[in-house]
Amino acid sequence: MLDPTRTIAELKELRALTGNEHGAQRVAFTTTWAEARRWLEDKCREAGLETRRDAAGNFWATLGGASPRSLLIGGHIDSVPNGGWLDGCLNTLAGLEVVRRIAWDFNGRPPMTVRLVDWADEEGARFGKSLFGSSACAGTLDMEEARGLVDRDGIPLPRALRDQGIDFERVGEARQELGHAAAYLELHVEQGPVLLDLGLPLAAVLGTFGVERHTIAFHGQAAHSGSTPMDRRRDAFLAAAKMAPELYRIAEQEGGVCTIGSCTTLPGIATSVVGECRITLDQRHLDADALARMLAGARAAAATFASEGGVAVDWSPLCRMLPVHFHEQLIALCDEAVRETCGSSHRLPSGPLHDAASVARAGVPSVMMFVQSLHGISHNKIEDTREDHITLAIRALDRLASKAMAWAGSPGL
Amino acid sequence: MLDPTRTIAELKELRALTGNEHGAQRVAFTTTWAEARRWLEDKCREAGLETRRDAAGNFWATLGGASPRSLLIGGHIDSVPNGGWLDGCLNTLAGLEVVRRIAWDFNGRPPMTVRLVDWADEEGARFGKSLFGSSACAGTLDMEEARGLVDRDGIPLPRALRDQGIDFERVGEARQELGHAAAYLELHVEQGPVLLDLGLPLAAVLGTFGVERHTIAFHGQAAHSGSTPMDRRRDAFLAAAKMAPELYRIAEQEGGVCTIGSCTTLPGIATSVVGECRITLDQRHLDADALARMLAGARAAAATFASEGGVAVDWSPLCRMLPVHFHEQLIALCDEAVRETCGSSHRLPSGPLHDAASVARAGVPSVMMFVQSLHGISHNKIEDTREDHITLAIRALDRLASKAMAWAGSPGL
Repeated sequence: MLDPTRTIAELKELRALTGNEHGAQRVAFTTTWAEARRWLEDKCREAGLETRRDAAGNFWATLGGASPRSLLIGGHIDSVPNGGWLDGCLNTLAGLEVVRRIAWDFNGRPPMTVRLVDWADEEGARFGKSLFGSSACAGTLDMEEARGLVDRDGIPLPRALRDQGIDFERVGEARQELGHAAAYLELHVEQGPVLLDLGLPLAAVLGTFGVERHTIAFHGQAAHSGSTPMDRRRDAFLAAAKMAPELYRIAEQEGGVCTIGSCTTLPGIATSVVGECRITLDQRHLDADALARMLAGARAAAATFASEGGVAVDWSPLCRMLPVHFHEQLIALCDEAVRETCGSSHRLPSGPLHDAASVARAGVPSVMMFVQSLHGISHNKIEDTREDHITLAIRALDRLASKAMAWAGSPGL
Repeated sequence: MLDPTRTIAELKELRALTGNEHGAQRVAFTTTWAEARRWLEDKCREAGLETRRDAAGNFWATLGGASPRSLLIGGHIDSVPNGGWLDGCLNTLAGLEVVRRIAWDFNGRPPMTVRLVDWADEEGARFGKSLFGSSACAGTLDMEEARGLVDRDGIPLPRALRDQGIDFERVGEARQELGHAAAYLELHVEQGPVLLDLGLPLAAVLGTFGVERHTIAFHGQAAHSGSTPMDRRRDAFLAAAKMAPELYRIAEQEGGVCTIGSCTTLPGIATSVVGECRITLDQRHLDADALARMLAGARAAAATFASEGGVAVDWSPLCRMLPVHFHEQLIALCDEAVRETCGSSHRLPSGPLHDAASVARAGVPSVMMFVQSLHGISHNKIEDTREDHITLAIRALDRLASKAMAWAGSPGL
């Protein structure tokens, strides 16, 4: 029988074990993370599941069924430093509860196999690149780029992996785990304020935004702030600053989001016109064409403002990802499960990336469910979700799992 | 007889002695500066002048006259690190040449006393506060602030002064040097592009701009760049960025200059809306009322943009100085001297501060003359002035000295 109170108690147990007064400290490939993993593995073994670690360090707990076709439920127990207590692990533990309920319902032998997966290093907090385990498993990890990643102490990712018993050159072998995958489900805290504003506990997620992330550098001329007439200036900050309201306008026009998250100035002193200004641009949209128009608009604006100010501009890409659309029928089932659990539902895209995007890219029908975040804040110790909403989320995920098993097992597929 | 070629040779000698491939290295209160000083003292003694150092470390070379009333000609041999070869020392050496000419003309005994002064630490490169020697002499040095200044190695200004044989607590005694001052003249490179653009070698300077220099901090809310809808953001960078074009508009309206020289963002990562943004504002104008209007305009704009974006704003002053207007009759004499020397003249304000502002604040009738800067660039090794313009500048300063002596000695004063 499904027992959400047990999950809430387990979430608090994990928080006590691996968090402190600054928040969750389960950064992937650290000892605290390894401790959280051992704790999770014990829970899974207690539940009678078969446990294993794949070639990329992902943890799998399997309830074998009559068919090898598998329903996957995935989350990540890793966190950012000083992270929220629910980000990632909510689903690892909600998924565990759902698998326990299925095992109970079917006397340990459901009609299809059910697997819980705890992805390795979703956050990318240590090496700056998110979705390591899920993208390795999906076959979409850029091996050349990953080979060159180093943490702030200069330790390369391959060495950090070796310390965890993982051979970097063989992480692609994790691909075989998806061989029998019929559907993938992921519950996550929203990390934004949409459901809070709507007053709704749960929603079905349409997909994850595509991302265009770039550094834009404006090159003007440093000059004395007192002796340089205004009309003689080539002010790199002025050109960069004009981007901000224009980018808001473009985002509003296209219905996406965009952010200038960082601005640096050189020489960066009060008594000099800015000679060089670098900003980061992060644009996101669920529609690839709209995202392309947003980028084109930003490029045109940067060229215009640079030209108006007599400065040069150049772009360097930081991250470019296509949008991922979740499976239409699974979205409908998710919507149904949410509606049946709490009366009303909502559909929304995800701004942040999630492991579900990797799995969907690998061709496995996937969907996510969001539960409301209090404060609309994420990656922060104040991240929180009401306990009654956590309970609803576990119940809705459980309903979705039943619906997905029925759907995946139907002869039409 | 005035010999500008000798001055140019001496400037080059000084450059060879105290500069390197990165520019001038005569940072005040360093050994290179002390070496430049000794070299200058030798030149002055060779010219038969009486030399002394005052309580604030300023160097005085005096040609005693029939009257103790004194004509002062001042410059500074100190430079910023990697500075221009003419910034400051042009006038110290042009002034020396003018004093030599006066001594020669009057057989060593002019009707009034003529004094060359080399101010200590005009640039403030080491301790971050300019005009040390001249403001100590003028009685306008903020002793409490100066007592607390430290260099990047943690050495307090009073200790650095002691190493030069200067007792910090007695620097105010330098005030007595201005006792008989009748007029003060200072020739300087322009450090801006105005004369270059006009195609003129020389100009009379009206005064030095007043300065309003502040840090403006906008406090919004850091939030995930993907999950936070545009209309839910409290974006500190957006509010700060809107300041840039508005400040240009205000400066144009009032005929002053203003600069955002530095912008910092927190958390300052590509995937977060900016929670806190700090910019520096530097506004300058020759008219105190106009400067006050510029500041009021900036404060109103910051409040508006903050309110539009749901962010808070606060201001901290960095430097506030009133404009200094040079002496009207000396400006007219300077204008005349320039016109007689090179056919046409111009009058302009100085954006940067100069020692002449300290002297004028002390009530001594003062004026400055600017000579064209190539590139309009200052505090940089590429700072330069055409040799024929240097020659014209020395000749015009000499004419101005004669006119100022006649004016200062006239019975009407």
